[in-house]
Amino acid sequence: MKIKTPAISLLFASVMASSASVIATEPVQPISPVKEINLAQVELGKKLFFDPRLSKSGFISCNSCHNLSMGGTDNLKTSIGHKWQQGPINSPTVLNSSLNIAQFWDGRAADLKAQAGGPIANPGEMASTHTLALDVLQSIPAYTTEFKQVFGSDKINIEQVTQAIAEFEKTLVTPNSRFDQWLLGNKNAITKQELAGYNLFKQVGCTACHNGEALGGNSFQKMGLVKAYKTSNKAEGLSGVTGKDADRFKFKVPTLRNVEMTYPYFHDGEAATLTDAVDVMGKLQLGKQFSKTENAQIVAFLKTLTGDQPSFLMPILPASVDETPRPAPFE
Amino acid sequence: MKIKTPAISLLFASVMASSASVIATEPVQPISPVKEINLAQVELGKKLFFDPRLSKSGFISCNSCHNLSMGGTDNLKTSIGHKWQQGPINSPTVLNSSLNIAQFWDGRAADLKAQAGGPIANPGEMASTHTLALDVLQSIPAYTTEFKQVFGSDKINIEQVTQAIAEFEKTLVTPNSRFDQWLLGNKNAITKQELAGYNLFKQVGCTACHNGEALGGNSFQKMGLVKAYKTSNKAEGLSGVTGKDADRFKFKVPTLRNVEMTYPYFHDGEAATLTDAVDVMGKLQLGKQFSKTENAQIVAFLKTLTGDQPSFLMPILPASVDETPRPAPFE
Repeated sequence: MKIKTPAISLLFASVMASSASVIATEPVQPISPVKEINLAQVELGKKLFFDPRLSKSGFISCNSCHNLSMGGTDNLKTSIGHKWQQGPINSPTVLNSSLNIAQFWDGRAADLKAQAGGPIANPGEMASTHTLALDVLQSIPAYTTEFKQVFGSDKINIEQVTQAIAEFEKTLVTPNSRFDQWLLGNKNAITKQELAGYNLFKQVGCTACHNGEALGGNSFQKMGLVKAYKTSNKAEGLSGVTGKDADRFKFKVPTLRNVEMTYPYFHDGEAATLTDAVDVMGKLQLGKQFSKTENAQIVAFLKTLTGDQPSFLMPILPASVDETPRPAPFE
Repeated sequence: MKIKTPAISLLFASVMASSASVIATEPVQPISPVKEINLAQVELGKKLFFDPRLSKSGFISCNSCHNLSMGGTDNLKTSIGHKWQQGPINSPTVLNSSLNIAQFWDGRAADLKAQAGGPIANPGEMASTHTLALDVLQSIPAYTTEFKQVFGSDKINIEQVTQAIAEFEKTLVTPNSRFDQWLLGNKNAITKQELAGYNLFKQVGCTACHNGEALGGNSFQKMGLVKAYKTSNKAEGLSGVTGKDADRFKFKVPTLRNVEMTYPYFHDGEAATLTDAVDVMGKLQLGKQFSKTENAQIVAFLKTLTGDQPSFLMPILPASVDETPRPAPFE
């Protein structure tokens, strides 16, 4: 096949110019690929993310509730913790969580590193302690060697553990969704119905909160802005962090990236389907009743936001040794 | 670099001849690589193995108790089932399980296919039913398409599900352990202490039961042959399958492949370390009290049996759709 290089270059330049202008005027931006990363920390953090020995039971790992086979969630209304305790809130996806302004629904952790230590020591989640988790890791020669290689010290500390997990989590971005391909200039990447959904999504004001690279994650908003949200869930959101009454029921706006995979929806997981979620959002946040057609268009658009899922070899964890504290699942 | 081909060929032939003669005279054989496999079934089975939607809770998958990051086990005395029920027996490793004469400690499943359906419908394990599990799979278009591609029919049935899981499990062999390298002629692959351990292992009679490719898995033997085994565990072994009183406390001899990773040991998981396990086996099965040195030699040998762990990309599971039956973790 004969390739006319100059013609292709011109075409490429023209596509890039046109897509750059599309991006500039859109409230949604394509996900940027990960640029700077500490790969040694990533590989260590991946092991820790999958290691159930960070829990008291030896059964629950980060991946149990942020399952990377399932959109970085557990697809449950609220999560299952130590001894099958029912969690208080829906597990948010770990995918693209590096794009969030803060972590947890109420933003109580400033960043991924601050977040990662929480569930390990939460009695309702992994139910360990930082001391015990460190004793476990420190007892395993393959871990002490790897921590030493990565962080340069003989003694493992919780800062290193959370730093490595956070660095791994930074790699969990999902570029290349069909919608991103459209934003980048491939006009055939989405259908007419999906485009109509996007236009409606902008027109009615969804993008007031669901904007940017992650279509969310960058502000706290009241759940039930126009009309109150009814739920038996006890979570009160941002007010628990700021102490301000005005922040009651303000939650971090969830990302809509990969939303087809991250069901069920809302902080209480009470919306089972995207159709339900769009309907409730229209009524409560925008004072708008979507028609069946409108709802279907928006749902069709939302399904274009599924990006390339993280792809990596399943990590093999170093074995415990005789001195390693044993799990206590039934104590 | 100049390579003398004929000389190398001769050397190779000589190594092969010498290793073939070693293998022929040893009670342990190196693990053969997987030869015939249905790759389409393997890829489907891998997804099913990792899919917690085969459980009632949506939280427990095959990989929960046969964790491929941890030697194909959960490293717990006995497993955690639906609603945190305490399992009756130690989860045997799924690694090299295709080499077993039968599955489960009591051999009640003839093969991997027969085994795979058990835990899904066991109320104490995944607590689903085959009907519900099939309804879940059948509702998900990506699964129905893949089952159709693999098995050629529109309707998914439990035979297909267990067949695909079993085919995936057949790939979970762990060749290339240092001991296999030694068997294949690399005399430097194990140390003097490890070789002394192997010689002792043969000499005292461990190989009467722990022999063949898997060093076990090919017979049922009484736990407590010379001296009774004391345990609060209720399992009675093979007699539950055959109905014969003579088969009480007969269990399938577990494989010793990857035994460093598959702690704790015995059907009740009561031996926390290899040192303990070797000590108990010596006393109860052989009527022999190993010295500290002997015990350490055997343990050193056992640690040479860790092979290449299965290496594969973490599977991405197809999302549920609106019609998919939802998990019921707290019902």
